[in-house]
Amino acid sequence: MACSDCGYDTAHRFYAGRRVMITGGLGFVGSNLAYRLVELGSPVLLVDALLPDQGGNLFNVSAIRDQVHLRIADLRDASTMADLVPECEVIFNLAGQVSHIDSMRDPLADLEINCRGPLVLLEACRLHNGGVKVVYTSTRQIYGRPASLPVAETHLKQPTDVNGVNKMAGEWYHLVYNRVYGIRATSLRLTNTYGPRQLMMHNRQGFIPWFIRRALEGAEITLYGDGSQLRDLTFVDDAVEALLLAGANEAANGEVFNLGGVTPITLRDLAGRIVELAGGGSVRCVPWPSEKKPIDIGSFYADYSKIRRVLGWEPKVDVTEGLQRTIAYYRAHGRHYWPTVPEMARDHDPVPLRA
Amino acid sequence: MACSDCGYDTAHRFYAGRRVMITGGLGFVGSNLAYRLVELGSPVLLVDALLPDQGGNLFNVSAIRDQVHLRIADLRDASTMADLVPECEVIFNLAGQVSHIDSMRDPLADLEINCRGPLVLLEACRLHNGGVKVVYTSTRQIYGRPASLPVAETHLKQPTDVNGVNKMAGEWYHLVYNRVYGIRATSLRLTNTYGPRQLMMHNRQGFIPWFIRRALEGAEITLYGDGSQLRDLTFVDDAVEALLLAGANEAANGEVFNLGGVTPITLRDLAGRIVELAGGGSVRCVPWPSEKKPIDIGSFYADYSKIRRVLGWEPKVDVTEGLQRTIAYYRAHGRHYWPTVPEMARDHDPVPLRA
Repeated sequence: MACSDCGYDTAHRFYAGRRVMITGGLGFVGSNLAYRLVELGSPVLLVDALLPDQGGNLFNVSAIRDQVHLRIADLRDASTMADLVPECEVIFNLAGQVSHIDSMRDPLADLEINCRGPLVLLEACRLHNGGVKVVYTSTRQIYGRPASLPVAETHLKQPTDVNGVNKMAGEWYHLVYNRVYGIRATSLRLTNTYGPRQLMMHNRQGFIPWFIRRALEGAEITLYGDGSQLRDLTFVDDAVEALLLAGANEAANGEVFNLGGVTPITLRDLAGRIVELAGGGSVRCVPWPSEKKPIDIGSFYADYSKIRRVLGWEPKVDVTEGLQRTIAYYRAHGRHYWPTVPEMARDHDPVPLRA
Repeated sequence: MACSDCGYDTAHRFYAGRRVMITGGLGFVGSNLAYRLVELGSPVLLVDALLPDQGGNLFNVSAIRDQVHLRIADLRDASTMADLVPECEVIFNLAGQVSHIDSMRDPLADLEINCRGPLVLLEACRLHNGGVKVVYTSTRQIYGRPASLPVAETHLKQPTDVNGVNKMAGEWYHLVYNRVYGIRATSLRLTNTYGPRQLMMHNRQGFIPWFIRRALEGAEITLYGDGSQLRDLTFVDDAVEALLLAGANEAANGEVFNLGGVTPITLRDLAGRIVELAGGGSVRCVPWPSEKKPIDIGSFYADYSKIRRVLGWEPKVDVTEGLQRTIAYYRAHGRHYWPTVPEMARDHDPVPLRA
């Protein structure tokens, strides 16, 4: 492990031999975290329910399959949690339903996954392993449309869909259990995380993988409006480092931290960059459909100075490098992420609602 | 109806013949609202699940029992909601689990009642009656420990228990459905509401009724600390007027409003006033138990200038008058609210956790 020059040494050393559980461990961020933890010498337990249409994908861990423990199980099952939680020193609680569109189509399913799940896990911690540390992944979606930029942690929370409400609640359960029961917990508010191993089967879980898939298919990327909305992107390796720092650092307990990106970029420039790097596809701007305009949140980028100050984290991978690595990954492994039969590639919906 | 001099004429006239549903209609605020709506000529449907240990009490509506429709039913039952919601023009969504202590003892039950319930109701509105107006009762508990006083609606939300988290989510579901689907919704953040028809069976649903019961029983009222924490109290008739205004006024759509009291009062003064007006009981201050001190929120009183400005509401009943009316009610009807057999009156826990 050549970590001595990366500035994160202490956190990295912390995980050697440390028993870690990752919920949502077959998903996008969870599997990338698992690779890193295996490198760092941590015995890793992956828990994933492999819910249909979610990001869990066995291929995501194929290269470390014999170096991790895997339990296909649902966070909402209290008995399973009572079985697994006592064995852990750190839990990365990443399981969740992340589609904003799906949360409006089936709000009760989103409630079950994003509220009941974390509560069952935290109850298991309280009852069976009060000494565990929990790191939760929240989302910038809880802020809604920014009143000012960049958005700091103290910005008013105004979630614009059921998923945002439930993720806000999920975050607060962790903070309440930290405060009332002393179960050490930290919440990271992720922005637009992207990179290898992200779901690409449909366009309801983030616009970046969808843009990449469209470009790799030589298809058109459609943007609402003039594409001038700014976004900050976090490459998944940077998000993983933030998780590791939060899990290892006592100063993170009871705190929430924004993540962020190196430099905000407009959706138009992002789509153009993807088309350029992928060597295929095209970009077209169309007017906002009237029924979708009310949920446009405009530009968003986060103020991540708090996590830089407290944990020493900052994003290191810029958009070009991150996209190159992501595109290379999907060029090699795309068939594990979306069907290639022509009739499945017809879907050409514009960028999903909450880009 | 002699409303012409009360300043709320328009709202009052709005309800004549207006079909109204009250969820939690057998509870404290719900039943008081029902009396007022019957006076105003509204056909009222009360929905209440009569969940054990909650505030639903058939005696609460005994005097108007033949003037209202009553359905013992659970908000979480989608079929029942599909049956009832289409018939309503205004829904006062008051059903909820209100005990902070119970929410920590059984967080999943609180989730079911306070999150699933509102979501099922709102889905019924979306599917079967998009033109309905919904008024939701939220709580000042979502603010947590105030950073400054008085607390305005824009104050950071920092709920300190699971109930506070779930009520915050319940409020946001309403705002999201207002914004995304145009289902007109308003949330009122109630402070310490008190008055006739409040649960007095146990001390886990608010300290004011508990103080009153103790005084009426000639027992000791125990306060943590020196009792100098300030609280603002809303007499239930004032809360009912705020609900009526919110339900009748289009300017309330998509908005949240704090309620508040005429003048903040310390817990010590409040307990003393209750003992004086009830002519019995006594007050004793004890040190904060160490395990409860972390959840002391200090003083709290709300800034209600927004609802005064937008809806013209302000609290009118001061603490002395409100307590007199409340004490008179329980002196006459106390046997319907708590058992009088001696062994049931032993419980002398201090003021509940979140006074």
